[in-house]
Amino acid sequence: MNKRIILASRPKGMASVDNFRVVDAEMPRPAEGETLLKTLYLSVDPYMRGRMNEGKSYVEPFELNEPITGGVVSEVVESRSENFRAGDIVAGYSGWELYSVAKGDAAATPTSLVKVDPSLAPVTTALGILGMPGLTAYFGLSEIGRPVAGETVVVSGAAGAVGMVVCQIARINGCRVVGIAGSDEKNKYLTGELGVAAAVNYKTSGDLRQSLKEACPDGVDVYFDNVGGHVSDAVMTLINRRARIVICGQISLYNLERPDVGPRPQLPLLVKSASMQGFIVSDYVARYPEGVGRLGRWLAEGKLKNAENIVEGFENAPRAFLGLFAGENTGKQLVRVAEPGGAK
Amino acid sequence: MNKRIILASRPKGMASVDNFRVVDAEMPRPAEGETLLKTLYLSVDPYMRGRMNEGKSYVEPFELNEPITGGVVSEVVESRSENFRAGDIVAGYSGWELYSVAKGDAAATPTSLVKVDPSLAPVTTALGILGMPGLTAYFGLSEIGRPVAGETVVVSGAAGAVGMVVCQIARINGCRVVGIAGSDEKNKYLTGELGVAAAVNYKTSGDLRQSLKEACPDGVDVYFDNVGGHVSDAVMTLINRRARIVICGQISLYNLERPDVGPRPQLPLLVKSASMQGFIVSDYVARYPEGVGRLGRWLAEGKLKNAENIVEGFENAPRAFLGLFAGENTGKQLVRVAEPGGAK
Repeated sequence: MNKRIILASRPKGMASVDNFRVVDAEMPRPAEGETLLKTLYLSVDPYMRGRMNEGKSYVEPFELNEPITGGVVSEVVESRSENFRAGDIVAGYSGWELYSVAKGDAAATPTSLVKVDPSLAPVTTALGILGMPGLTAYFGLSEIGRPVAGETVVVSGAAGAVGMVVCQIARINGCRVVGIAGSDEKNKYLTGELGVAAAVNYKTSGDLRQSLKEACPDGVDVYFDNVGGHVSDAVMTLINRRARIVICGQISLYNLERPDVGPRPQLPLLVKSASMQGFIVSDYVARYPEGVGRLGRWLAEGKLKNAENIVEGFENAPRAFLGLFAGENTGKQLVRVAEPGGAK
Repeated sequence: MNKRIILASRPKGMASVDNFRVVDAEMPRPAEGETLLKTLYLSVDPYMRGRMNEGKSYVEPFELNEPITGGVVSEVVESRSENFRAGDIVAGYSGWELYSVAKGDAAATPTSLVKVDPSLAPVTTALGILGMPGLTAYFGLSEIGRPVAGETVVVSGAAGAVGMVVCQIARINGCRVVGIAGSDEKNKYLTGELGVAAAVNYKTSGDLRQSLKEACPDGVDVYFDNVGGHVSDAVMTLINRRARIVICGQISLYNLERPDVGPRPQLPLLVKSASMQGFIVSDYVARYPEGVGRLGRWLAEGKLKNAENIVEGFENAPRAFLGLFAGENTGKQLVRVAEPGGAK
């Protein structure tokens, strides 16, 4: 039997488990050129919150009563594509289902199926440090942040799937890195495991601007922003001349019911000749192989460390997703659905 | 007798004539290497409002009870520098005085004295279309806006000293230009004289976003922002993918007593992979000769039109300056202090 998780209703404000429903479904059959996939791991990512709303943000919204779709690592259980065969482990974007079908094209698009080699790295890395979040960190920091050795790089959401990679790449670039996260446990991970120079807990720091000022005695040259809101307001008061602000995510805003209102950043940008740029990882799709290659080498050499937080069980995917907005995860948040090797 | 205009007090909120005072002063004497200058024209510019406050913005604040300083066109009445001689017309930055002394260095710094050739263009252009405002328009649009033929370029403060040049350079680049200004007279100038495709009066349009939407059926690719505040909020809702927002000025904010609060632009920047960058013209000081050369050719060829608004009389400089914030000027605002050719 197949199961799927559908969008039962669109959230108003904070999303909840009631917006999702687990339903029984037909076992899908692959057509010519398609593959039948058994889901092993589901990825939950903050950007998916935008897709729960009506209307387009980056990407098209989820359809009501249709499966949630997202990043998935699967095992090919039946292939009618010449590019894949049964037993292959693949990463791609598909519905939250126990079994799904996918086109087996060889074309490189942001959503096409790619083979994962389990002998190079754990297959979960294809959804994290060697997948979308890792590439997001790599291209956002390198192309927009453009860090220079000796500069101060501040990262919000620093212990998340993207942030932890940004912190480490900034260190590889010879920068002084300051992380912002929402728990002392995360900050201990940042300073202890990742070698970040200072970590600020935005929930308990009291005067956040003052804490950041102490953590950044030379000001802020690059701000890699995953969260937005008042955390970013505080960072913006400390930017240096020609600072680069990378707008990667705004997780603090995704569940807001009202427009996001606060101090506008235009005046600090003006006075400091600074820049602020948004992006989505698929802006760099033509360079994914370069990014995966670079991240993979750093990981193999031990220059990059990985962290994952794995929730067990398909039915718990909505809870794992919602946990992102409560800041529950250190590192990449995943859901384990099945072990490979099971027969169809 | 010499006179000067000093900063009598720092404004709280909106600046007023009471913040200035005209005082008698000694006739200054040039030391070795200096020149004695008779002031012909004073430039009043929005950025000077920031200098009336305590604390640094772009540049150092004016000192209390010391002369206001700004862009000036003068005649050399006595020279003790080998680089200038009596009768030369020069542009530079000096105090608001009838007579002042200035170093006669040949070095090119953002504030050094430069000779003006009255046979090439009216000397007032050295403070406007061929001076700081023209260069601001040229470098801001070319380097940050990077307009491509066929794109839609929106300009706020479009009838001001910088905006009118931006509108015209964008047209030279083959763009569709939409201007935003605060009077029907200005908008008639923009569409009639400058060939702007559409002009929106932000004071009378009612639903500004809707008016802009109608004026920009293909969205906004470049936004050259001179004003900030709610005008910019409306433009930000209409930006296209990979839009470039040039933060040149924020004149609507310079007299605010409270922090500038409104819809933060980070989320639209994120969703559109768009960028926002602030600058000051002196970021491009090494390229001033290129900019003046290009602007001068366009002006000589008739591709650029000039507009100036000239107030008569030294004592009226504060009023002319304050008029900027009331939107009184179409084109470059200047103050005529004296005619050239007078003896010392």
